[in-house]
This record gives sequence, structure tokens and C-alpha cells, in this order.
Amino acid sequence: MDIDEESLAFHERHRGKLATRSKTEIHSMHDLALVYTPGVAAVSKKIAQNPDAAFRYTMKANSIAVVTDGSAVLGLGDIGGYGAIPVMEGKAILFKEFADIDAFPICFEEKTADLVAQIRNLAPVFGGINLEDIAAPRCFDIEDSLQDLGIPVMHDDQHGTAVVVLAALLNACRVLNREFADLNIVISGAGAAGFAIVRLLKCLGIDTKYCSPAGNIIVCDSRGIIHKRRSDIFAQKHKYIIAHETNRAVLTGTLADAMEGADAFIGVSAPGIVTEEMVASMGPNPIVFALANPVPEIMPERALDAGAAIVGTGRSDYPNQINNVLAFPGIFRGALDAAATRITDRMKLAAAHALADHVNAPTRNRVLPEVIDKRVAYSVARAVQCAANESGCARAWLQSSPP
Amino acid sequence: MDIDEESLAFHERHRGKLATRSKTEIHSMHDLALVYTPGVAAVSKKIAQNPDAAFRYTMKANSIAVVTDGSAVLGLGDIGGYGAIPVMEGKAILFKEFADIDAFPICFEEKTADLVAQIRNLAPVFGGINLEDIAAPRCFDIEDSLQDLGIPVMHDDQHGTAVVVLAALLNACRVLNREFADLNIVISGAGAAGFAIVRLLKCLGIDTKYCSPAGNIIVCDSRGIIHKRRSDIFAQKHKYIIAHETNRAVLTGTLADAMEGADAFIGVSAPGIVTEEMVASMGPNPIVFALANPVPEIMPERALDAGAAIVGTGRSDYPNQINNVLAFPGIFRGALDAAATRITDRMKLAAAHALADHVNAPTRNRVLPEVIDKRVAYSVARAVQCAANESGCARAWLQSSPP
Repeated sequence: MDIDEESLAFHERHRGKLATRSKTEIHSMHDLALVYTPGVAAVSKKIAQNPDAAFRYTMKANSIAVVTDGSAVLGLGDIGGYGAIPVMEGKAILFKEFADIDAFPICFEEKTADLVAQIRNLAPVFGGINLEDIAAPRCFDIEDSLQDLGIPVMHDDQHGTAVVVLAALLNACRVLNREFADLNIVISGAGAAGFAIVRLLKCLGIDTKYCSPAGNIIVCDSRGIIHKRRSDIFAQKHKYIIAHETNRAVLTGTLADAMEGADAFIGVSAPGIVTEEMVASMGPNPIVFALANPVPEIMPERALDAGAAIVGTGRSDYPNQINNVLAFPGIFRGALDAAATRITDRMKLAAAHALADHVNAPTRNRVLPEVIDKRVAYSVARAVQCAANESGCARAWLQSSPP
Repeated sequence: MDIDEESLAFHERHRGKLATRSKTEIHSMHDLALVYTPGVAAVSKKIAQNPDAAFRYTMKANSIAVVTDGSAVLGLGDIGGYGAIPVMEGKAILFKEFADIDAFPICFEEKTADLVAQIRNLAPVFGGINLEDIAAPRCFDIEDSLQDLGIPVMHDDQHGTAVVVLAALLNACRVLNREFADLNIVISGAGAAGFAIVRLLKCLGIDTKYCSPAGNIIVCDSRGIIHKRRSDIFAQKHKYIIAHETNRAVLTGTLADAMEGADAFIGVSAPGIVTEEMVASMGPNPIVFALANPVPEIMPERALDAGAAIVGTGRSDYPNQINNVLAFPGIFRGALDAAATRITDRMKLAAAHALADHVNAPTRNRVLPEVIDKRVAYSVARAVQCAANESGCARAWLQSSPP
């Protein structure tokens, strides 16, 4: 039985993957009075006076909505809110199994609806919102518009990916004894993941005008190198930003042109678009992270043959699996533990560093922890909670006196 | 420690009452491949082709949204979506504990928003919608507008209450050896519960023009008896319907006038508004269900002193507790087991009869099962599932071949 058949049989047998659980049993009228009427009225009154008290007295303290409109589900594309259910349920149980978070799927049927207003409106019961599988560029506006919600709102396809890529790059630099800030990096793909990787790399000082480091970032999309003289960049805000915040030398040309002499390649684009010649044209001991899944931009054997020093993919059957599950459970665990109002860049950087540091002695074949290692999320969470406090976005009173 | 303090301490200790649970553990890359990528893609594709397949492969088969806008929470009134969280969480764990349903609270913050569109949009992951604590008359329109959603949508404050009241009335008639269809019934309160009780009683043939039975229904609101010559009934559709579908003799006057000679009083209104004199003016061996909570329309001792034969309240410290928890878990359990498209009157009547029949030998002090009796929901569920099949609103293929 192949994995598809096995998965279908598994899902049918269990009728999905997620269930609810009551934290208390109800055996008597007194139990009922405690959890429901009349006792619950005192709790409701307290929260009606101060909504933040919901963090103290309700499931909000530990709950996350996994929200999608089904517009960019896995590699399947726009399959809609119903088709997305098994993926969002899967995400929800990963939150539970890796970080003991009570996550629940919200799969919107209608893509034309005003999702920002709708997500805002259902926020009370949630301590955070994980946006998932929403197509670019729509995902950027939705995420941006929700940053004032008072709870963390994070699009995992963007920032989860960026955090894991950054952690892998940090450890690759350790292994190769390279200065991170001096890396010349080529990113293939200017969608959700590509844009978020650019933004996070810039937080670390790569390619900033102000620090003038040696490092540089070049981003390519299907039309080649993105630069500020390309006329089509005005149509999409995030490409305009990429054009103006990367590629200082205003290089033009193809992905192959961009990769010449580069130190690192990060592919978040399409299968098979990188050749051995392109890898061979990179600088000495290049880093190649080919994350298109299941078929990467270049297969690991071929990248290694062409001289790549460290190769990572999204696949579990090769070393250096770059998988979001290393990041999102810990990021949200830390944010919830801080009762954070949002997820700052500092928190994402802290997550990346914690993830990198979780590997005791990184090697070429081990720049990241094992995906299945359940201690990872708690390492990440501690760092994220700490960074939330430093960022000033934690609800400090939760650690002190009640509201 | 009184119940309020105890409840606050309990809620704080547990951080609410509801959690999620994964139906499977994840220990290996194979587990991950089965529940998430790449295995889940096969499931998503199947559902994208046929949304109804979600009943077979996802949590939709067993999940309910407990939806409120916080506009009529318990006796607290319009305390908003945040204040409602503990009540909706409580409802969700009652669903779990009494009927093994995976219910999740959706507490809308914004009452002015288009809740119908928003509920419709988040429906994919749910097998049913329990509307809760939404103020009348808004609750009627919201519920009506969602009846074509393809899953059961039920406002529990209406129909859950009506089902339990009907069950209690059926058994009261057995105890008193009365003909149900001949009862003259006075209902005090023309809100959500009052209107639903009228509609369900009429399904049983009381006060229908067509059958011309001896029975009659009179509904009173705070202005007295509702009749079709009252000018204010045009302002609210449900009062207009009440005026035209009850009170055939077009009686006018006060609640006291209505109760003279009546066989049964059902109070879903306000504390203390019924006097001993009013009960004494009723017909022989009257039935008095005084459901205002925690302070009923008349206290049981006083109603019994005034000659009531059977008295019920919403309280747990008197016999004959009339509590929704006897109905909603079983109604939704039965609807989910049938993968029903909606909840029909036939299903509600079946629930009421099953609830009444659950009491082996009803007495004056026992017209309903114990609220805490967990076998009740399964008796109700079997009857409701059966009625769903008879109503033609069950998804029959779920019992036969896959979609």
C-alpha cells in the first residue's frame, strides 16, 4: 500500500485527526454548576469588564486558529476551503503533538470574502492566528492588516519557512567557517516564502544600505532577476519592495546569471530549474537549499556532484530536511507563554538562533535538528518568550497580579 | 467558598475548560507523512472533488461550532464575544462529556457584522452549528437564513428549550392522565424560547386551525396577551406570527387574565411575575413550569401551595429540572450520526418523545430524566438519527459506499 492509500485509509478509519477534550469530567450537579451555570457567570462578568482576563480564565491562553482560504494548499494550488480541511487538521495536531497547543482549523469557503474582518471577528477565543496556505500576494495584505489584533498573527508559509532557512544558513556558516553577514545569497522564488526570507535576512544585516556589509541578496522569479528597473514590479507591492531592498548593484539577467559566484542558493520555487552547471558556477563551497517539494530545484546528488558543500531540501529521505514543523510549534508556544500581542522580528530571529543552537555540533549533513525531535519546540519557545518580553509585546501582568 | 469564587478559581487553575486532542501520536517520519505531507494530499484531492467526502475523511463528521455574538449571555444580557467565551467553552465540554461531540466555541466580537455570511464561510470544517445566546429577534433571522447550509444549524435557546419543555409536558400529561392535544397552555415570554415552544407545540397539533382540537395556546409578553389586533405586533415578525398562530379567540388582557382556567403555564420570562392567586385561578390540577433562572416566575413551594399538580423549574435544587442539557447533546449526536443536512421538526419531536420515554414511570416529581444521566443523550440521539432518515435529510451514502 503506498502512502496515498495508507493515508486515505487512516483518515477514513479515524474520521480525521483532531478531537476536543474536556479538561474536567462532569459527574454531578456540582460539577455542572462549576463549569456551566450558575458558576460560569462570575467568570463571564470578569471578562466582560476586561477582555484580557480571557487569557487567565479561558482556553484563549492556549488556543490557536489555523486559518486558510484554501487558495494555495500544499502543491495542489487553489483547492478551496473543503479540500484544505485535512491539511489544516494535520497542522492542528502538529501544534498539539509538538507544543501542546490547542489549535483548531478554520477553513473559509469563500475567497472573495473580507477575510481580515472575518478573522478579526472570530478572534476572541484564540490566543493566536496561524495563517496557512493563502496565496501570495493576498497573504501579505491579510497578515499586515491583522497586526493590531492584540494576538500574534503569523503566516507560517512565510515566516515559519524563513526561520528554518535562516537557522540552516546560520549552521551552514558555522560548518563552513563563513561570516554570515558576508554571504551573497540568491533566492529563487518571490512568493510568500521568498519574500519572508528576504525580510528576515535583512533583519540580520545582510544587504542593508545602512551597515554596508559585504553580503548581498538577489531574488529571482520566473522572469529572472528582480531589479528596480523592471517595469512589472509596480503591479505587486512585495516585488517592488524586493526590487528596492535587494540587488544593490541592479543586476539583470537570468537565475543562472544570478547564481554565478554566489555563496548560497535558496530555492522556494519550482522543481528541476537548477542545473549542475549553475551550481558549479557558484563560489567556493556553496550552500544549496532546494526546497521545492517533493521535487526540489535540483536533486541533492546532482548538487553535491556539482560541488555543493551543504545541501538541504524539504524531503525527509535526504539529510538537512528544512521543514516548518521545526519552527511554528515553538514560535507559537513561546508567543502563547508570553501572552504576546504579536510576533516581532526579534522573536523570529530568536527562534532561528535557538533552532540553530539546538544542534550541538553541526556538520555538513546535519545543519538542523531532526524534524521529529520534540525537544526542539521547547528550545524555540523559551527563546521566543524571552524575545517577546524584550520586544515589549508580552502581557506582563499574566506573570504578576490578575487583571 | 461560594460557587462564584470556586468557579473563578477552577477556571484560572485550568485556564479554561476545553482542549484539543490528536487522534494519533506522531513519533516517526512515517507518522508525519501519513497525517501531513505528503500523504494528506491524496485526502485533500478527494475532498476538493466532492466536498461531502469531508464527512468521511475529516473531523467534520463529529464537529460542531458553538457560535455566539454574546448578545444574550445567560441572564447577563449583552456582554459581548469575550464575556461569552467561558459559557461557550462550557457548552463545548457539555457536548463532549454528554455526547462525545467535538465542539468548538466561535465567539464573534462584532454584533453589527453580517453573521450569516461569516458563519456560512467558516462552515467547511463543521458538521453542525449550535447557535447560542444570540438575542431575539435577531436569532430567528440568523437561524432561518442558514437552513440551506447543508449541515444542521440550531439555535439551542430556542429549540433545545422547546424540546425539553415538550418532553416534560408529555410526561406531565401521562401522570395526570390528560389528553395532550386538549391542553390549554399559557406561555409567558415571547422571546427565543417562547417562540420555539409555540412552534413545536403546534407541530403536535395543539391550536391548529386545521385539526380544530380542543387545545389552545395563549402567549403573553411584558405588555400582556399577544393577539392579532395589537398594533405593536407588526414591528417584530415572530410576534406577528405568534399573534396569528395562537389565541384563536383573540383574548386580550393581562397574564393573570390568560391564566384563568388554563391547564398549563410555561414561564420563559422574568422572576416572580406569577402570584399564588394566578396559579389558584387555573383549571384543575394545573401544570406550572416556571423556567426563569435562577429565580423562577413563581417559587415551587408557592405554586404547590396554590394548587399546582406538577411544578418544574430550571433549578437543580427542586424536582423536575427543565434543562437544555437533556436535549442538545443528543439532538446533535443524532444529527451527526445521520450526517444530516438540517434539523427538522420531526427530529425535534422525536427528541422530545425519546426524552419523555426515557423516564420509565413518570411521577409528579419526576417528569424528566436526571440532568446528569449520561444515557439520555444516546436515547435522544437514536431517535433523532432515525427521524433524520425518515425526514430525508440524512446523507445515506455514509452508511453505504464511499462518495
